[in-house]
Amino acid sequence: MTYCCGILVRDGLVMIADTRTNAGLDNISTFRKLYLFERPGERVLMLAASGNLSVTQGVVNLIGDGIEHPESGVVESVMNTPNMLHAAQLVGRAVRLSRSQMGNAEGEPAAQGVSFDVSLLLGGQIAGGPLRLFMIYTAGNSIECTPDTNYLQIGEHKYGKPILDRAVAYDTDIYDALKIGLISMDSTMRSNLSVGMPIDIALLRRDALEIEVATRIGSNDPYFRDLRESWSKALREAHMAIPKPPYSGRNA
Amino acid sequence: MTYCCGILVRDGLVMIADTRTNAGLDNISTFRKLYLFERPGERVLMLAASGNLSVTQGVVNLIGDGIEHPESGVVESVMNTPNMLHAAQLVGRAVRLSRSQMGNAEGEPAAQGVSFDVSLLLGGQIAGGPLRLFMIYTAGNSIECTPDTNYLQIGEHKYGKPILDRAVAYDTDIYDALKIGLISMDSTMRSNLSVGMPIDIALLRRDALEIEVATRIGSNDPYFRDLRESWSKALREAHMAIPKPPYSGRNA
Repeated sequence: MTYCCGILVRDGLVMIADTRTNAGLDNISTFRKLYLFERPGERVLMLAASGNLSVTQGVVNLIGDGIEHPESGVVESVMNTPNMLHAAQLVGRAVRLSRSQMGNAEGEPAAQGVSFDVSLLLGGQIAGGPLRLFMIYTAGNSIECTPDTNYLQIGEHKYGKPILDRAVAYDTDIYDALKIGLISMDSTMRSNLSVGMPIDIALLRRDALEIEVATRIGSNDPYFRDLRESWSKALREAHMAIPKPPYSGRNA
Repeated sequence: MTYCCGILVRDGLVMIADTRTNAGLDNISTFRKLYLFERPGERVLMLAASGNLSVTQGVVNLIGDGIEHPESGVVESVMNTPNMLHAAQLVGRAVRLSRSQMGNAEGEPAAQGVSFDVSLLLGGQIAGGPLRLFMIYTAGNSIECTPDTNYLQIGEHKYGKPILDRAVAYDTDIYDALKIGLISMDSTMRSNLSVGMPIDIALLRRDALEIEVATRIGSNDPYFRDLRESWSKALREAHMAIPKPPYSGRNA
């Protein structure tokens, strides 16, 4: 399926995405799902996509080329949209338009039993405004991430949610947030074959308006391999340190 | 929703079930989902249920009262079925019959948009045969747990799967298996409101033919409270011990 997460902390924003795509178990490929748009010093926008690949690739094309704004008539693209809220709405319009272009007009059931559903994460900062993170749904509506639950996930989110719930807060150091996001990805990949390596990551500091880290983590990456082994070892030691249950007898 | 797991180890079998039931978020109750059938020295059968409560309660009634066997005509119940494989097939027939009795005849879509789907775990031992664990599906078919992946889960299984994948094996001590199952339940409850306390547990040693532990764990249970805190603390220390990621620069 997919697993992507965006973690928003006081220091900035981290985005992590897997790359496994499948049209059935016998048709597995690697496709980029994390897209970066940058004009250094002026704007950074980062988009992670899950769901129907034809629709999400369509969204990326539309927001890059631009869509006529329904009210102003101006052709609005990811590189000229005035602020992050407008950017999230632009992605929403692109989702509706892309679905329609790919043959799933609004309100109609999808043909061939294919799902045209998508979910996207859009995070970033445009000069003059704050760093923000949004999730955009299949219908084109969106919600914003807040410090209360300072992360958003799309795709196979359940396996990796417990560690985010426990370990990440708004004041977590940004590189620790990246680390915890990678642990979250590791848990997901161990339990679900439809999520796989390589993994794309990006890190943006608040008010920097320039991407600090953007890289692809492959299977041979020594840090990630060590992270996976350390985490497994730590979990093993953690549960071995908990005493055995004292329960006995027939009480229920 | 529900979360139950059955863990089969060399020493025996552990069954764990939550008790939260809901007919919507504004209608939450506590209902037993782990049913124990025992004739000490001769048989122990343990049934955990998820899905439509009317259907699963129907199943429990039918296997207790007995159903006429389609081939022999004998009224077969959980207390006279000759072996665990027959018992799993009996539960399968009870599922189909219960669904039909509750108004969802085979092959017909459920009325009112209600789901009549169920999943059950049946584990136990009948004298003369081995200890076995099965999962029975909505259609009444079943699969058996094997030492390769020596656990089965029903309900909200994704949150709690990673720890079982990592920590439980066929040669795990039976009380350690219980402990890990409880950790699995803890992770699920933290991330999903539809799974909640109290928790019912049962433990059966191989060839004992008598339940060793059957008890209900409430919110004030000191061991479980300590387990949850220790696990949280251990996870926190575990990820703090992993060094920060070394990634830098724009490479992708």
